[in-house]
Amino acid sequence: MTERKSAPPDPSRRRLIRGALALGGAAAIPATARAAGDPAITELQPWMQYLGDGVDARPYGMPSEHEVDVVRRDVPWLTADPVSSVNFTPLHKLDGIITPNGLCFERHHGGVAEVDPAVHRLMINGLVDKPLVFTMEDIKRFPRVNRLYFLECAANSGMEWRGAQLNGCQFTHGMVHCVMYTGVPLRFLLEEAGLKPGAAWIMPEGADASAMTRSIPMEKALDDCLVAFAMNGEALRPEQGYPLRVVVPGWEGNMWVKWLRRIEVGDQPWHHREETSKYTDLMASGKARRFTWEMDIKSVITNPSPQAPITHGKGHTVLTGLAWSGRGTVDRVDVSLDGGRNWQSARIDGPSLPMALHRFYYEFDWDGAPLLLQSRAIDSAGHVQPTKKALRTARGENSIYHNNGIQTWHVLKTGEVENVEVS
Amino acid sequence: MTERKSAPPDPSRRRLIRGALALGGAAAIPATARAAGDPAITELQPWMQYLGDGVDARPYGMPSEHEVDVVRRDVPWLTADPVSSVNFTPLHKLDGIITPNGLCFERHHGGVAEVDPAVHRLMINGLVDKPLVFTMEDIKRFPRVNRLYFLECAANSGMEWRGAQLNGCQFTHGMVHCVMYTGVPLRFLLEEAGLKPGAAWIMPEGADASAMTRSIPMEKALDDCLVAFAMNGEALRPEQGYPLRVVVPGWEGNMWVKWLRRIEVGDQPWHHREETSKYTDLMASGKARRFTWEMDIKSVITNPSPQAPITHGKGHTVLTGLAWSGRGTVDRVDVSLDGGRNWQSARIDGPSLPMALHRFYYEFDWDGAPLLLQSRAIDSAGHVQPTKKALRTARGENSIYHNNGIQTWHVLKTGEVENVEVS
Repeated sequence: MTERKSAPPDPSRRRLIRGALALGGAAAIPATARAAGDPAITELQPWMQYLGDGVDARPYGMPSEHEVDVVRRDVPWLTADPVSSVNFTPLHKLDGIITPNGLCFERHHGGVAEVDPAVHRLMINGLVDKPLVFTMEDIKRFPRVNRLYFLECAANSGMEWRGAQLNGCQFTHGMVHCVMYTGVPLRFLLEEAGLKPGAAWIMPEGADASAMTRSIPMEKALDDCLVAFAMNGEALRPEQGYPLRVVVPGWEGNMWVKWLRRIEVGDQPWHHREETSKYTDLMASGKARRFTWEMDIKSVITNPSPQAPITHGKGHTVLTGLAWSGRGTVDRVDVSLDGGRNWQSARIDGPSLPMALHRFYYEFDWDGAPLLLQSRAIDSAGHVQPTKKALRTARGENSIYHNNGIQTWHVLKTGEVENVEVS
Repeated sequence: MTERKSAPPDPSRRRLIRGALALGGAAAIPATARAAGDPAITELQPWMQYLGDGVDARPYGMPSEHEVDVVRRDVPWLTADPVSSVNFTPLHKLDGIITPNGLCFERHHGGVAEVDPAVHRLMINGLVDKPLVFTMEDIKRFPRVNRLYFLECAANSGMEWRGAQLNGCQFTHGMVHCVMYTGVPLRFLLEEAGLKPGAAWIMPEGADASAMTRSIPMEKALDDCLVAFAMNGEALRPEQGYPLRVVVPGWEGNMWVKWLRRIEVGDQPWHHREETSKYTDLMASGKARRFTWEMDIKSVITNPSPQAPITHGKGHTVLTGLAWSGRGTVDRVDVSLDGGRNWQSARIDGPSLPMALHRFYYEFDWDGAPLLLQSRAIDSAGHVQPTKKALRTARGENSIYHNNGIQTWHVLKTGEVENVEVS
């Protein structure tokens, strides 16, 4: 192959692509570039003048020191002790649909179990023909699959039930992450043990100090659950269940038992603490809904947001956010700049995979006036994200879990952003 | 929702799914599980008896201490100095198609530039209507996209041109990684500057001490190149060009200029060092091919492999590997256990995206006899991965770059694996 002929751009093709990208808004290309002569480019920077670290310096790499504020954060007053608590994914600092392993939010009930994989075992017992105990090596001899799934804590946005509480999407919506899991379909392990007649439920149990247990219906267990040992290509992180966890696609995170040591098969649910006292939905009537496993259609604008104000002033602005549904793909995201009076469709970009995060963008010209930003997602099952008001009308204000209401951010003239509610 | 009725598994559906998963091989489910009574499960492990770390312990998480051998590795004798050298992705320890950011191989020419994003600038100059200088904030005001792409160094497998040299897929094939990039289509920045008549090439330049430059034809620049600032959701890592790099989908990694500070637009290529003395293909005739940008269809079995021997003895065995093509998707991967005499189709699992890694599996019953493992990939453009012999016949043995020949692993009776060639 030799040099190519001059290939001047084809303006018609470029218009087409730009048009597709600008689908959701009026955005043309921002004209904010500075004239040449900026000392930051005319002067040699230090890193251009000296050799940097070699390839032997970072066997396992870490982010730049300029990104030290991109971290999970906990809120000490939320819980009595950090060993049974939560921290939050910094959604406002991320892009795309993959969460880096080091930034996936954590929720523990007895702290992080530091399991030695060499002595770790998975037992399957109960209503099975043949109780079994697997080593990690045994499990890796079964056929495995790779799937990108979001995991959301049922309590994500739980503080918002009683009005705007926390000032930043990291805290209001940061109990969600999305990674590619590698694991064995749970069905294969259950088939290996052999299900006895009447086997209708499973109870995974964790090897941590809380011995976490949840009841999962057999229909789901045989459908798409995984026993996963890797996330984003590498072994699970300790705080995400190393060396083994259950993946329950689209269902509340508490069911994705970490440090998985046992799966009991039974003919009815176990009614343990985490599905009776916790992870149930107390209605206005005083009765509680339980076994509300699916995570409903939801979205949030991550930028601008309280932790990510507009700092560039008027003009071209990129609005972006995340949407997800436990019932399939996200088909559409609408964005409002005026608190829900007018809506425009956002552009969903990147792979659209079932029960995975979806990234949306809406580019617009900001005139410097205050805004009330909202996003509203619609999933492939036809569900539309509700307003907080509609949620409260249906369910009262006793709930902690399953708040998928539309979030409002108030952008001030200064570009600062605050968490508000519109009536 | 209340308790569900017993839902015994539907054997017909399970057979269907198992059949689909076992597509490539004879593999049923391995029967290697141990009987209950294993002391590793009957005895309480330490991590079940004590509370672990809380959610305030790991603002940015790291892998388990049991995974300390899952790291990038360099080979000191390959180069004179680690600042202009390479290290290798531990492919034999990974699964799926995403490479964690901390494990993406590195190739530097002047070490890692530690750039301060606040003072970093990108200039566009040359054959443009309006030379421009962008801050990082300026760039983030353009519409952005998210794409999963592999990046392969043209020298990947280069040592194999003259016969089997390195014992492990980390070293023979580990100069490849695959992450999801977030960035602005380069086309938008070039349009903002305005291309003058005759503008046919661009030359991105790095802000590191080597001031890396390469010539890229305008056709490619306007087609799918990105100016990327994030990988796998978070900011680029320092060793991958933080805060800004060019993404040149499917083309050799050296063109993906890191620490991007300038893009010059011209009417012809620059013929700089990295496209004349280096990154050209010296043929048997003594003439060199240049501008061989596309990375051709390629695959490698990552397990079993020299660093990942079979340790479980005879019986059910999971063979897995990676395939990729700079010309589209991978449509098929065939696997041979006998050095290329007989071939079976492997199962490709996970998203199949153009110019991204593809993960394949082949499950088989190992009888304990020696094997000669090979994989052969076919891409959507119809290209078939060649044998090393065919490559040498076409191009001689002077080459360093663009070796996409079929790799052979020799599995011994002990389960150990070595790098060999078959004639």
